Amino acid sequence: MSGAIASSRCLEKCAWESSAVFRRQLYLVRSLGGGSRYRTRMDMAQCSGSSTLEADAEGVIRKITPVMEPTRYKGQAGKIAVIGGCREYTGAPYFAAISALKIGADLSHVFCTKDAATVIKSYSPELIVHPLLEESYSVRDDEKASVSAKILTEVAKWMERFDCLVVGPGLGRDPFLLDCVSDIMRHARKSNVPTIIDGDGLFLVTNNLDLVKENSLAVLTPNINEYKRLIEKVLNCEVNEQDAAGQLQLLAKGIGGVTILRKGKTDLICDGETVTRVSTFGSPRRCGGQGDILSGSVAVFSSWARQYILSNKQPTEKSLNPMVLGCIAGSTLLRRAAALAFENKKRATLTTDIIEFLGKSLESICPAT
Amino acid sequence: MSGAIASSRCLEKCAWESSAVFRRQLYLVRSLGGGSRYRTRMDMAQCSGSSTLEADAEGVIRKITPVMEPTRYKGQAGKIAVIGGCREYTGAPYFAAISALKIGADLSHVFCTKDAATVIKSYSPELIVHPLLEESYSVRDDEKASVSAKILTEVAKWMERFDCLVVGPGLGRDPFLLDCVSDIMRHARKSNVPTIIDGDGLFLVTNNLDLVKENSLAVLTPNINEYKRLIEKVLNCEVNEQDAAGQLQLLAKGIGGVTILRKGKTDLICDGETVTRVSTFGSPRRCGGQGDILSGSVAVFSSWARQYILSNKQPTEKSLNPMVLGCIAGSTLLRRAAALAFENKKRATLTTDIIEFLGKSLESICPAT
Repeated sequence: MSGAIASSRCLEKCAWESSAVFRRQLYLVRSLGGGSRYRTRMDMAQCSGSSTLEADAEGVIRKITPVMEPTRYKGQAGKIAVIGGCREYTGAPYFAAISALKIGADLSHVFCTKDAATVIKSYSPELIVHPLLEESYSVRDDEKASVSAKILTEVAKWMERFDCLVVGPGLGRDPFLLDCVSDIMRHARKSNVPTIIDGDGLFLVTNNLDLVKENSLAVLTPNINEYKRLIEKVLNCEVNEQDAAGQLQLLAKGIGGVTILRKGKTDLICDGETVTRVSTFGSPRRCGGQGDILSGSVAVFSSWARQYILSNKQPTEKSLNPMVLGCIAGSTLLRRAAALAFENKKRATLTTDIIEFLGKSLESICPAT
Repeated sequence: MSGAIASSRCLEKCAWESSAVFRRQLYLVRSLGGGSRYRTRMDMAQCSGSSTLEADAEGVIRKITPVMEPTRYKGQAGKIAVIGGCREYTGAPYFAAISALKIGADLSHVFCTKDAATVIKSYSPELIVHPLLEESYSVRDDEKASVSAKILTEVAKWMERFDCLVVGPGLGRDPFLLDCVSDIMRHARKSNVPTIIDGDGLFLVTNNLDLVKENSLAVLTPNINEYKRLIEKVLNCEVNEQDAAGQLQLLAKGIGGVTILRKGKTDLICDGETVTRVSTFGSPRRCGGQGDILSGSVAVFSSWARQYILSNKQPTEKSLNPMVLGCIAGSTLLRRAAALAFENKKRATLTTDIIEFLGKSLESICPAT
């Protein structure tokens, strides 16, 4: 980043931090739920004065998780769809989709390639798996336009039923497939369907920022490398660990109102306004697949947060960002489940083991009855 | 072996055993870790004066197994790839790849044929399975050169990400497939990626010794029959149980610096220098698949040993052979897991049962926290 731009961005950030909007957000997150039920704590980032809030994550989870009532019917607790799964990857979309169910969603769909579908179906009879996507190797050049249109038509038929999409787990990087997924993302946006973007979805979005720009219903969940690429693309500079919170704010504002969950030892969450931290210790195990659990979890929790906010008449609650709440809840639940699985399986802990603890972890925070 | 050659090899061996190099290795392995934490014992082989060391295997495992720290990120605990799995065999590559994860690797890939891929994927969502290899029946003669080149290009894209390859579990003996795997092995060698060779990989290597000759990052893990063929090919004689250690040294030197783990009631490990024994009792159950666990385990442990040695500044540690340490650790862990599984399941013990005890076995030697 050139000095002038950096300086201008810094001024912008400082001005923003002292703004009325920032103070209001700070108040909202700190006072979420109010009273002794919720504890919040404000810490200063390592330097540069960027402020982060340690989320009152358990309070958030208790607030947004719907009460289980006998009168509710199938679908009300969430209908999630994962767009991912190709010739190479089948585990990732399965992890995301099954995690959504294990947290409490009623229906979980996967849209993937034909090759992947048979395998994903075989992992679990609980999922609804649509073998609709195609990769370049299976489509002739002269067929591409018609195949692409047909895929969009087929997925679009389902779109309005979904409370949230997860785009990216095990998506792969086939150019034709990514073009089709871009169409699906545009359609989801038109239909106001919130979208969580992870894995190869982030590869797609980093190279096509318009897909998420100014979409307040989009969440990006980058890991260390994916975050690096986003920073380079949007802010044209290196990752600055000394002002991690400030830089994340700039990134979220740069993309324009999306929510970003920056994964790391501490997860940082920002929609361009407050930066929230989740630093509860999870587990030191770093087996592949934990990011997929997170994306499925954020999808469910942000859907629940949206329902909560829509049905709430309090102005303070009305102004909350459901995507931020979903990230806080998802990050916390994964960490708790990972901690329990690790306690049990130690170095042998795999993603499947962590998924098995999602239910118990949620129950410990927010009992079903 | 002709008398003259045998005599010359014997002289060479005796000279070597009294050499400074031998004495240094002996010192290094015996003093590994030093102090009361490590116990080593030196025994004489049954006759002929060839010396073997009973490895202080638990000491080795504690030394090389990385500490679990919250700051570590995905991939740092190991990224393993298994090359194997064809129309006939799917269990073996799965056993090797899942064992790597259960010991603590972060990512485990399998490169196999299309037929095998669907099945291996369906065994576990934790593995990343690439349906890239081809057998003769699926490739026309005039396509072979281009298909072969394409396979190498695809695998090569991934190569630098891997800490270790395992070549052979369930590979089969299709000539076209073996040619492609030879190319992959040459590429791995150029890229300095350590390679553990088992099963049909040993069939390939025994007939093409140049694939491993002088490669100090190669490990061969022959069972009784595979060892017999290697001895016949390299030393042109019968297996000599009376001087098992001496003959193993000659074999390892004959191939030139590879590490050999000779599987048996007692496992013997040699890189042409010291011969180390692992004789902890495992289980009397000989169900197929245990060799696959071993190859996956050796892959992880030798990667960890390499990291340990690279990051260590002590000259004594710097000179250790990570492949030998990986063999000692892998052999010991398998034996302990097999013992626990057998205690539990007796005659019904299967490979899957043993894999389930890998984590507990490692925990008993080297607790994660």
